[in-house]
Amino acid sequence: MTDAPTDPPPQTRRDLLARIGLAAGGAAMYQAMTALGASAESTYTGPIRLEGDARNASVLVLGAGVAGLVAAIELRKAGYRVQVLEYREKAGGRAWTLRGGDRFTELGGATQEVRFDEGQYFNPGPWRIPYNHRGILDYAHRLNVPLEPFIQVNHNALVHGRNAFGGRPKRYREIMADYHGGVAELLAKSTQQGKLDGLITKEDGEILIESLRSFGALDRNLAYAKNLQSSDRRGFEKDPGGGLSARPVPSEPMSLKDVLSSRAWAYLASGALTEFQMTMFQPVGGMDQIALAMAREVQDAIRYNTKVVGIQQDDRGVTVAYEDTGTPGQVQQARADWCVCTLPLSILSQLEVNVSAPMANAIQAVPYAASVKVGLQMKRRFWEQDEAIYAGISYTDLPIRMIQYPAHGYGSRGKGVVLGAYAFGPYAYEFTALAPEERVRRAVEWGSQLHPQYKDEFETGVGVGWHRVPWSLGCNGIWTEATRRDHYDNLCALDNRIILAGEHASYIPAWQEGSVTSAIDAVSRLHRRVVSA
Amino acid sequence: MTDAPTDPPPQTRRDLLARIGLAAGGAAMYQAMTALGASAESTYTGPIRLEGDARNASVLVLGAGVAGLVAAIELRKAGYRVQVLEYREKAGGRAWTLRGGDRFTELGGATQEVRFDEGQYFNPGPWRIPYNHRGILDYAHRLNVPLEPFIQVNHNALVHGRNAFGGRPKRYREIMADYHGGVAELLAKSTQQGKLDGLITKEDGEILIESLRSFGALDRNLAYAKNLQSSDRRGFEKDPGGGLSARPVPSEPMSLKDVLSSRAWAYLASGALTEFQMTMFQPVGGMDQIALAMAREVQDAIRYNTKVVGIQQDDRGVTVAYEDTGTPGQVQQARADWCVCTLPLSILSQLEVNVSAPMANAIQAVPYAASVKVGLQMKRRFWEQDEAIYAGISYTDLPIRMIQYPAHGYGSRGKGVVLGAYAFGPYAYEFTALAPEERVRRAVEWGSQLHPQYKDEFETGVGVGWHRVPWSLGCNGIWTEATRRDHYDNLCALDNRIILAGEHASYIPAWQEGSVTSAIDAVSRLHRRVVSA
Repeated sequence: MTDAPTDPPPQTRRDLLARIGLAAGGAAMYQAMTALGASAESTYTGPIRLEGDARNASVLVLGAGVAGLVAAIELRKAGYRVQVLEYREKAGGRAWTLRGGDRFTELGGATQEVRFDEGQYFNPGPWRIPYNHRGILDYAHRLNVPLEPFIQVNHNALVHGRNAFGGRPKRYREIMADYHGGVAELLAKSTQQGKLDGLITKEDGEILIESLRSFGALDRNLAYAKNLQSSDRRGFEKDPGGGLSARPVPSEPMSLKDVLSSRAWAYLASGALTEFQMTMFQPVGGMDQIALAMAREVQDAIRYNTKVVGIQQDDRGVTVAYEDTGTPGQVQQARADWCVCTLPLSILSQLEVNVSAPMANAIQAVPYAASVKVGLQMKRRFWEQDEAIYAGISYTDLPIRMIQYPAHGYGSRGKGVVLGAYAFGPYAYEFTALAPEERVRRAVEWGSQLHPQYKDEFETGVGVGWHRVPWSLGCNGIWTEATRRDHYDNLCALDNRIILAGEHASYIPAWQEGSVTSAIDAVSRLHRRVVSA
Repeated sequence: MTDAPTDPPPQTRRDLLARIGLAAGGAAMYQAMTALGASAESTYTGPIRLEGDARNASVLVLGAGVAGLVAAIELRKAGYRVQVLEYREKAGGRAWTLRGGDRFTELGGATQEVRFDEGQYFNPGPWRIPYNHRGILDYAHRLNVPLEPFIQVNHNALVHGRNAFGGRPKRYREIMADYHGGVAELLAKSTQQGKLDGLITKEDGEILIESLRSFGALDRNLAYAKNLQSSDRRGFEKDPGGGLSARPVPSEPMSLKDVLSSRAWAYLASGALTEFQMTMFQPVGGMDQIALAMAREVQDAIRYNTKVVGIQQDDRGVTVAYEDTGTPGQVQQARADWCVCTLPLSILSQLEVNVSAPMANAIQAVPYAASVKVGLQMKRRFWEQDEAIYAGISYTDLPIRMIQYPAHGYGSRGKGVVLGAYAFGPYAYEFTALAPEERVRRAVEWGSQLHPQYKDEFETGVGVGWHRVPWSLGCNGIWTEATRRDHYDNLCALDNRIILAGEHASYIPAWQEGSVTSAIDAVSRLHRRVVSA
C-alpha cells in the first residue's frame, strides 16, 4: 500500500523522510527508499512443491490475509492438517474491497456505512499488481481470477501544484514533453558546441545528438520549439481533424525554467519504476477477488471472528489462545505442532508470545506506516466525458496527493468511484484526526481544485485511515537500513515451532507479493524442518 | 494503420522516406512525418446536430466503412433518405477483424482461410484507439461497444536489433533506464562542472541537477551506476523477495556508449507521441465491433455486395453505376440528390467520375501505402507464462518489425494470437511478394529470433498485404507537404453534388478518427448547402 516512491513531489519526499525518521537530503532519501525495498520485484519462480512426508503434522495459521491463505493452501497440499484463525468475518486482510452495504468500525468507534451503488467499489488497501509480481499473479491465474489492466501513468491526467503555474493544473503530457524537450535541447546544444569534450567522444556525441532529436522532439536547429513535432508530444493548440479546416495548430511549450521551478518533473519518474511500469493489473471487480478465491480453496479450514490473544510454544507444539469476537473475554485454546503467524507486527507486538529474544526484539522493532485513502462516488464519469481522462492518476501537492480514476467501465454512462485521496505520514494523521464524514468533505473540497465538477457530481464517500483499522493498526511495516541489518533475519527465522510471514517479513513491503513470497519461503523452511526431523 | 512514426529504428525512417519519395535526412523526415499528419489528435467536439430542414433530400453513401457509416447515421438523423452501397458482404471496411472460418481472396487470386480457434481474432487493419480520438470513442460509447485498454508500451517487452548486443534481445526497460540514466548523468555532471554556463543560470542548474537525479536514478555522485536505484528502473539481477535470502541484488547497467550505438533508443519515443500515450483502447472482441455497431444503426439502408463502377453527377443529382458482385457485368444504377463518396482514392481514381478538374487532380495525387500484417495463433501464451510479457509490443529491425501480444485474456491457459509482423514500404512489398503461407512461415522464422518458443508453439496464421486487398489497394492515402498544399482542399470541397470523406480526406490519415471527423465535416457542409439552397 505504500507507493511513496512513485508519487513524490518534493513535499512527499519530506513526508517519507519524516516517516522513517531520517534527517537527510535527496541522495540519502534514495538510499532510504531502496532500504525500504519499496520498489521491488519478486523472487517467485513458479508454484512450489513441498516434497517429502509431512508426517500428518498440524499447523495453526494465524490470519487469513494473503500470506496466511498462501501458507494454508501450500501446507495442505503438502499433507499438513491446517487450521486458520481469522479475526474478521471474511478473508483477505488488507486486500480489502468496500462495496455498498459494507460497514466497518475504526479505532475510536466511528462506524462508516458504505453507500456506493451496485457494481461500484473501492480498494482501501492494495489496488494494483505489477507484471513482475509473479507470485500473486500466478495465484490469480491458477484460481481463474480475471485480471484487467491497471493504468498507472495517464498522459492526459493532471499534474497540479498549489504554487505551480498559478495553481492551474497541467496535463502530464505537457510536463513530460516540455521537460524531455528542454533537457534534450540543453544537452544536444552543449554537445554540439563542444562543451562536453572530455565527457563524450565526438563519434558518440553525434549519435547522442541524433538520439536527443528523437527523445526530445527537437527541430533541425536542435531547439525544442513551438511546432507540430513538439505538439505531437505535448498536445496541439488545435487538433488535426478531417475535411476542411482540419490543419493542426501547434501549442506553445513551457520554458525549461518554468518546468524546473514548478517541480512537477518529480512526478515523471512514477511510471519508470519497475513496480509501476506497464503492464500492471487489477482483478476484475475489486482487489479482494484474489484473496477470496484463495480462501475458497481452504474454506473449511478457516475459523472467522476469532481474535488471537496469546501464543505459547513448547518443545512439542504451539498453543494459541483466542476469543470469539462475539463473546469477548471467553478465552479458548487451539493447539498444533507448528504455527505460521501472519498477524501484522503492529498487532503481534501487543500480544504475549514466547519466542526467543532476537525474534521478540525484531517484532518490536518495526513501526507501522500511517496512511489514508478516500473513495468518492460521483454521479457521472466527468473525467472521461469532459476531459478525456480514462483511468490513471492525477497528482497534486494538496493533502489528497492524488486522484485516481477507475480502470474499468470505460465510457459507461453510469457512476464511478474515484480514489479521492491517498496520503502517507503527516497528511494521513491530519486526515484521520477528522471524523470520517469530514475526511470525505475535505477530499471533495481539495479535489475540486483539480476538477471543478467535483462539487456537483459528488454523491457519497468513505475514508479509511489504516492506522485506525483495529486489525492492522497501520498500512505496512516500515524498515530502515538499520532495522533490516539488526532484525530482519531474526524476524524471519523459524523460532522453534513458530514462523512469521507477511509483507513485514519481506523486501517487498506493502505489496501482496511480499506476503506471497514470504509465506512460500516460510512454509518451505518449516517443511524442511519437519521432513528432516 | 500507419504507425511508422512510432516504430522507427533508423531503418524504418528510411523506409518512410523511401515511401513518401523524399530524399532527405532526419530533420526533413520529421517535417515529412508531421506533413503526413500521421501523429495526430482529433477536432471532434461531441455529437453533431444538423439543424434545419433536409427537405426530404436523398443521399447515396458509397462505402460502409467507418466514414460511410458515420455519414449515413448522421444524415438519416437529420432527415435525409440515405442509401449505402458497399462492395463487401459486410460493413467496416478496413476496420476488419479476422476470425476462424473467415475466408478472403487477395489480388492475384490467392485465398486464405482463417483457422483460428473460437474466441481468437486478429485485426489486420486498425487495432488501437488513442484517448484523444474522441470521435470514434464517442461513437463506441454511444453504441455501447465495450472497450478495454490497448497496451502500446510494455516495459518488459523486447527490443531486438540484428547488430545490437550480439543479436540478443534486451528488455524495453533496460534500454529506457540506461538511456535516461546515461543522458541524465552526462547533463548533470556537465552542469555541475560549469560547462553549461551561459546556457543555464546557476539557480536553474541546481534544480536541473536535482530533477536529473530523479529522472535518471543518479546516485549521490551524479552517476548512473550499478545499485538498487538503477535496478529499480532497469530490473534487478536478483529480485527482492520474502523471508530469508530475500535481499535484492542489483544488475549491471549498459554504458551510454553501448546504448547509443545499438540505436535501440529509437524505440523509446513510441509511447511519447500523443497517439500512443496512455490510455489507449481496443473494442472487446475485435476492432470491427464499433463499425458493426454503427452498421446496425442503418442496417436497412445498406446494400452489400455492390461494386460501384461509375459516378456521374448533373445539376439535379448523382447517378451511381454499380454491379452486384455475384453478377459482374450487369450494370445497374442508383440515383440520389447528393453523394458522399468514401471509396479509397486508390479505387476511386480508377473509376469514371465527373467531378471538377481540381478534385479530379486531387483524386489522382494521393498514392497509397503498402503494408502487411501477419497474425499467428500460438498453442499457449508463452510470452506471459515464460517471460512475464503481458500485451504490448516488442520491436525488432527484422522485416517483421514488431510482435504484438494480445491485450485481453491475460493469464488464461488457452491459446493466443500475436501480431507476428507489421511492416510498411519495401518490407511490405517483399513480404507480400510471397505466397500467403510463405509470409506466415517467414514471420514464424524471424519471430523465433525474439522468442525461441515460436517454432514449437505456432499453429496457424494469416497474412494480409493491404496493397493486395482488392477493395482498398493499400493501407492509407499518403500525403506530403506538397500534395497537402496543392490538393487537399480541392479533395475535400463539395464538388457540385459530390463530397468525399474518409481517412484520406483528413489530417489523421490511417486512423478511424480521420474517417469519423472527415465524415462529420463532409455531411455538415453538405447539409449547410441543402439548408441554404
